[in-house]
This record gives sequence, structure tokens and C-alpha cells, in this order.
Amino acid sequence: MTAPNYGQTFAHMREGCLPSWQAYTRHAFVQGLGDGTLPRKAFLHYLVQDYVFLVHFSRAWSLGVVKSETLDEMKVCAATVDALVNHEMALHVKTCAAEGISEQQLFDAREEVENIAYTRYVLDAGLQGDFLDLMAALAPCVFGYGEIGLQLAQTTNADAPYAGWINTYADPEYQSVCATVGEMLDGAVARRLGDDPTASARWATLQDRFTTATDLEVRFWDMGLRGV
Amino acid sequence: MTAPNYGQTFAHMREGCLPSWQAYTRHAFVQGLGDGTLPRKAFLHYLVQDYVFLVHFSRAWSLGVVKSETLDEMKVCAATVDALVNHEMALHVKTCAAEGISEQQLFDAREEVENIAYTRYVLDAGLQGDFLDLMAALAPCVFGYGEIGLQLAQTTNADAPYAGWINTYADPEYQSVCATVGEMLDGAVARRLGDDPTASARWATLQDRFTTATDLEVRFWDMGLRGV
Amino acid sequence: MTAPNYGQTFAHMREGCLPSWQAYTRHAFVQGLGDGTLPRKAFLHYLVQDYVFLVHFSRAWSLGVVKSETLDEMKVCAATVDALVNHEMALHVKTCAAEGISEQQLFDAREEVENIAYTRYVLDAGLQGDFLDLMAALAPCVFGYGEIGLQLAQTTNADAPYAGWINTYADPEYQSVCATVGEMLDGAVARRLGDDPTASARWATLQDRFTTATDLEVRFWDMGLRGV
Amino acid sequence: MTAPNYGQTFAHMREGCLPSWQAYTRHAFVQGLGDGTLPRKAFLHYLVQDYVFLVHFSRAWSLGVVKSETLDEMKVCAATVDALVNHEMALHVKTCAAEGISEQQLFDAREEVENIAYTRYVLDAGLQGDFLDLMAALAPCVFGYGEIGLQLAQTTNADAPYAGWINTYADPEYQSVCATVGEMLDGAVARRLGDDPTASARWATLQDRFTTATDLEVRFWDMGLRGV
Repeated sequence: MTAPNYGQTFAHMREGCLPSWQAYTRHAFVQGLGDGTLPRKAFLHYLVQDYVFLVHFSRAWSLGVVKSETLDEMKVCAATVDALVNHEMALHVKTCAAEGISEQQLFDAREEVENIAYTRYVLDAGLQGDFLDLMAALAPCVFGYGEIGLQLAQTTNADAPYAGWINTYADPEYQSVCATVGEMLDGAVARRLGDDPTASARWATLQDRFTTATDLEVRFWDMGLRGV
Repeated sequence: MTAPNYGQTFAHMREGCLPSWQAYTRHAFVQGLGDGTLPRKAFLHYLVQDYVFLVHFSRAWSLGVVKSETLDEMKVCAATVDALVNHEMALHVKTCAAEGISEQQLFDAREEVENIAYTRYVLDAGLQGDFLDLMAALAPCVFGYGEIGLQLAQTTNADAPYAGWINTYADPEYQSVCATVGEMLDGAVARRLGDDPTASARWATLQDRFTTATDLEVRFWDMGLRGV
Repeated sequence: MTAPNYGQTFAHMREGCLPSWQAYTRHAFVQGLGDGTLPRKAFLHYLVQDYVFLVHFSRAWSLGVVKSETLDEMKVCAATVDALVNHEMALHVKTCAAEGISEQQLFDAREEVENIAYTRYVLDAGLQGDFLDLMAALAPCVFGYGEIGLQLAQTTNADAPYAGWINTYADPEYQSVCATVGEMLDGAVARRLGDDPTASARWATLQDRFTTATDLEVRFWDMGLRGV
Repeated sequence: MTAPNYGQTFAHMREGCLPSWQAYTRHAFVQGLGDGTLPRKAFLHYLVQDYVFLVHFSRAWSLGVVKSETLDEMKVCAATVDALVNHEMALHVKTCAAEGISEQQLFDAREEVENIAYTRYVLDAGLQGDFLDLMAALAPCVFGYGEIGLQLAQTTNADAPYAGWINTYADPEYQSVCATVGEMLDGAVARRLGDDPTASARWATLQDRFTTATDLEVRFWDMGLRGV
């Protein structure tokens, strides 16, 4: 699949780690979501871990507000926190509730080591670096799920086992979040790295953050499969 | 005026620095807002500084999401960021626009030293301490404006010069924010300090943060008056 | 082995997660260090990862200075950063240099997921919580290595394969660091939690941080063994 | 006085705010230190505030370790923390002890609003931005005191009232700190902004941080004079 149009920065960084990106977006877990062969037990294990992931991901996007330097950056980050806390996490709560798992149980779930590694890496990118360092580490999750959603939606029926999950991310509302974040990110990059960002001194470091976060997405899917 | 009912923690901390609290809530600037004698120039000077204040205050409430340990703490902080960015700041934008000051000009305004001191003190309370340290430093602004709004609304006519400002804070919507924050704060205190928080080892430190932030509110009004 | 005397806080937290603590301090990797059966390849793999670990551990102790509230806390944290950067890491540099691995190669080593998880968890404990939250997450490494050093030194000859490693931690200089940190930690706990800290509302949360960090130590040894 | 040779970055930033820089380094307070006309009371007021300033300045340099991306950055920041905590602050402790003011009294001194503004602004520069943002805000104090020390030492006798203060900063040891920090800063800038840093997109923002911190130095001297 070609890259969705989430802006220039995403296109460059995705291209800069294509093997990792494909290992992430075409992972066996993803394929199992698409063709419905993923065991329910693995899905639920993933969903519980992903809920805790989103808690810390919301903390990281809030750190994005703390690190913003423009009004636009603040507003996009604040809106993303709202989307995560009040919408994306609701899918997890609803699906898990149907299986008898309460939201407090989700919040208190014991984190797998891959989960800790990913979320705390992102938060530390924000503590150690600036807004761009944090965004480069946040980007693979936001954009990757958008790309996976679009990709799986092309071949999934409405009554497929994981159609609800797929539609959450293929949905125009989520795609619109990706487009907005991508546009904001391009502006944030231009503001700090100028007109030719991939030629700037910091690009390799930022690419490394994007690549590391992408590799940690792969480990997250591995963890999901292990839950079978 | 008696303390509005914004919870036990607020009641204790307000009582713990009553002279400072009264210097803040009964300041000459506040009286000038109430009786309409505050020069327009001073009000506009204050409003521009307060806009920049709210930018950093939003950053501090976002840091509150980063530091939350419960779902309720996260949700209240995220909702407060939304209220600040999308509602409270709108009053400033609208009022200043009528005077020919654009939002970008507000965002870029040169901060007075009292403004820097207050906002950065609050942010550092969050960096240095935990969720309670941050909340103790955030509380005087949230609750004080609520109390001032109620107090001034008792004697203000709808056509008074600063009725718009007063109503923003006397409004049930803002009062509801105060009540929600107060309830969340009581829960956050109980969770960390137990059933008898004022007897706990940390109380003096937390009171000191509340008192320092209250004193910085006084300096902020002083700065407003200096703008004449 | 009974707990070394590194203060009351350590004694309580160690007791509060004894199975995890024993899984950590009596791990197969530790036994292999003691009886010399640990393959050299596994040791070097561990040493390279541990160097990067110490880089981030130094960052976390520096965050301890940022979060200190007393002069004593500042001084102990600053001295620990100095001990890490200028002494403990020197063992790694020297040992690795003998194997043809430069310090820059160590600094640039690709981190294993267990390494990322542990160091970033500790740093985030400091970002999310206060000084105690950070210290509870830092404690298992400092004190555990002291305990392991003492334990292995009882049965190790001076010419044993890993005597250099063992002596680094059994050494009076390192033991003195443990005692100093332990005493400072007891003071920090008394200041914030009072005279009966294990009965305080925050104790369970702090124990959880200590336990999680201990479990991540176990995973770190697992990772070391995997390097064979 | 021409700029001391503390590296290219300092030279550019100093030049970029020359009126502010001169208001800082040629302030009436500085002149009073040099010719001995500064009232003792003002000096002591300044010294007490400066002690608390150095506490938070040490916290900010420790945050520099947290934000470092190279071994050299870490080592220089850690060494600066050591120099501050164990050497520069000793002058204050010793001088104040001779006046009957204990170190604990210094640590607990009530901060003036200019003091809060300056130190928390620097700390927030580190929280909001990256290593360079923090360094740009830390630089005016480090380099300015070096320049002032050299400047005053040219015309001061050994028995002048404030010769001790002047010598602390004119001393080769302190000048060596300035040179080391300046060299590290040039490297940090090259790493992130490339070969022509003043032409980079971020330069204006970094200059603004340096200028703001310089202006806050001016306010700090104002505060010192007010202590008369």
C-alpha cells in the first residue's frame, strides 16, 4: 500500500525506515485482524494492554501541549488528548465491558514489558528533547493505525470479526485526526528545521526516534500474539 | 465573603493563608472591576498579560494530565485544558479583537516579570513535585476567580463596564468547573495523604505552594494596576 | 542472605516484594557471575547494555536533583551522578576497551527492549510523581547491586572470572554509596510520609514502583542470558 | 569591554542583544561591586537571594544532564552541577556565616518575585524545549558573571570591599568553567543546527531565550539594589 497523505514529514520518515514500517503495518497480528483469523483471546489480551497504552499515550500528547510553541500546536495536541480520552478509549471500554472487564480493571492492568518500553520511551523523548522529538516518537502510532485501518477496510466485510476495530481507524473521523496532526507536524518541522528539513543537522536524530517507535510497535504486536 | 463550597482542601488552604487570600480577592484591581472605576487601559494591559498567562496555565493543566494517577484526575485535567483553550481564552480574544488586538499579537505579547514568575512557578511545582504539588499551585487561580466572580456579581449591574468579565467567572459553567476541580482535588488528597490530610507530613509544603501562588496573584493584580 | 543495612525504607520495600527480590538477587545470571560459569559472550552483551543503562540511570539521578526539596537530597543525588558518570561507568569502559569496544560504541549501542523499559520507566516515575516516586524506582538497582556484591564476595576468589565486577559492588566505596543513599531516602520518606510511612496512604503506590523496578531487573538479567 | 572568548555561540547571542547585555554587565549594582560603593546591606540581600538562585540553577543544570544527547554534554553539565553545589555556593555560605546567617536559613529564604521569575523561566525552558533551549537560558548567567569578573578585576585592589566576590568569578577556575561550557555549547549547537547556526530556523527562538534571561539578570540586579 502506498503511504496515505498525512503530510511530508510522515512521508519522509516512513520512507526512512521502510523495512521497519512494513514489519509494523503488515504484521501477522494485523493480518489476523483483517482476515478474522486472530484468536479472540489474543485480541482481548491486546485490547487490555492497548487501553493502558492509551492512558500513557494521552499523557504523552498532554506533554505535547506543555512543549508546544505555537497556538496551533497547543490546539492540535489538546484536541488529540480529547479524542483519545473521550473517543478512542471508549472502543476498548465498550468491547471489554461486553467481555465482563470493567474500565477500572483496564486501568489497573499489569503492563507487559513491551508496553512499558514503548510508552515510557515516548514520554522520555518529550522529557529529553523538544516538541519535534516528542512528535517523532508519537507519529508511528497515530499514522500507522490510520494506514492499517485504510488498508484492512479495503477487503473487510461489515460482519467480519474485527470490523469494529478496523472501522474505528478507517473512519473519516480518525483519518481526519491523522490529516490534522500531519499538517500540524509539517508546520512544526518547518518552524524549527526550515524549508529543507531532511537536510538539517537534526534529521537523523528525529528519524531515529520515529524508527525506534516503529520497532516498538512491532514488539507490541508480538506481545499481542503471545497472548494466545 | 465566606468561602464558596469548592471542597475541603480549598477550604483548608484558603484558611491557611487568609491574609494573602484577602489581599488577592479584595485587591484594588478587583474592586475597580466591580465598581467600574478600573481604567480601561489598565484592564486591557491586564487582559493581554492574562492571555499569555492562560497559555502557560493551559500548559500547566496539561502537565496535570501527565502527572495524573487515576482516570478521574486525567479526565478533569483534560477537560480543564479544553475549557481554558476553547472557552476562557475566547473572552480575551473577543474583547481584545474589539480593541484591534489580534490573537497572534496576544500570543506574542511580551510577558511582565510578575507574569513569568507566576506561570513558571506553577509549571516548576509540577516538574519538582507530584500531582498534589502542581494542584496546590494551580488552585488559587481557579478557585480565586470563582470566588471573585461570585462576590462581584452580587453588586454588579448587567450594564456595568466589566460585567462581561465578572459574568464569565460568576457563570454557572465556570462555577461548575470549580466544583468539579474541588471534588477531584479532595479525592487526589485523600488518595495520597489519607483521611486527615492537614495532619500529614506534607501539608506544610503543600500549603506553602498554595500561599506562594496566592501571593503571586496579588503581584499579578499589582502589575495590572501599573498598566495605567 | 539477610538484607544489608541500607536503612528502614529499603528493608520495608524489599520485604514487601520478597519473591521478586529473590528472583532478582538470586537470578541464574547472578549465580553465573559468582561461580564463573557465565559465558563471556553473555557478560559482554550485558556489559554493553548496562553501559547504556547507566547513561539513562545518570539522567534519572540528575532528575533527582531537579526534584529535591532539601539540600541533603540535592547533594546525595549530585554525588551519585558523579559516582556513576566518573566511576561506575569506568569499569564498563575499561572492560569493554580490553575487548576492542570503544566508549562511543557503548554510548551508541542499540538498546534491547528490556533496557528501554527499565530506564524509561524510572525516568517517567520522576516525571509523573515526586522525589519519592523516583527514588522508589531507582532504589532496587542501587541496593540490589550492593546486596549481590556482598553476597557473591563471600564465596569468590580474587582470580575468579568476574571478580572485578563483584569487587566493584562489594567494595567499601560502593557500599558507602548504598548507606548514604539509604540514609537520605529514610530522611526523604520521613519528611513526606511522617513517622509511620508504611501506614501512609501513599505506601502501596511507592511499593508498587519498587516492585515494578525489581521485576524489570529480573527481565534485565533474562536479557543478559539471552545474549549467549 | 570586548566579549571574552567563550565560544562562537556566546559571541553571536551576546551581539544579538547588546543593549540588554550592557544593561546587565554594566548595571549600577555591578559598578557598586567594583568601586566598593555598594552598601553592605544590599550586598547581603543579594547574596541571600543568589544562594536560593543557585539552588534552582543547580536544578536547571541537572536538568541539562537529563536532556543531554552526548557523553560530552552529560559530563560538562554534571561537572557544572558539582562546581555550583560544592564550590560557588560555598562563597555564599562562608560570607553569610560571617554575618550570622546559616546555610539552612539561606536555603529557606523567601524568594523575591524577580528571583522566582528568572530561575523558573530557565527550568521551564528545559521542560518546554530541548537541550539548546535550556542552554540558551542558562548561558547569560554563566558567561555574564565571567565577563563581569574579568572586567571588575582589572581595576580592583585585593583589599577592596567586594574583592572576594570579584575574584570568585575572575579566577582561572571559574574562567575555565566558562571556556568549557562555551566549547560544549558550540558543539551542541553544531550537532543540532549545523554549520551556519545563526541562519537556521530556530535561531530567533534561541536568541529570544538568551535575551529574556539577560533581561531577567537586569531585574535581578534591580532587586539587589532595592535591598538597600
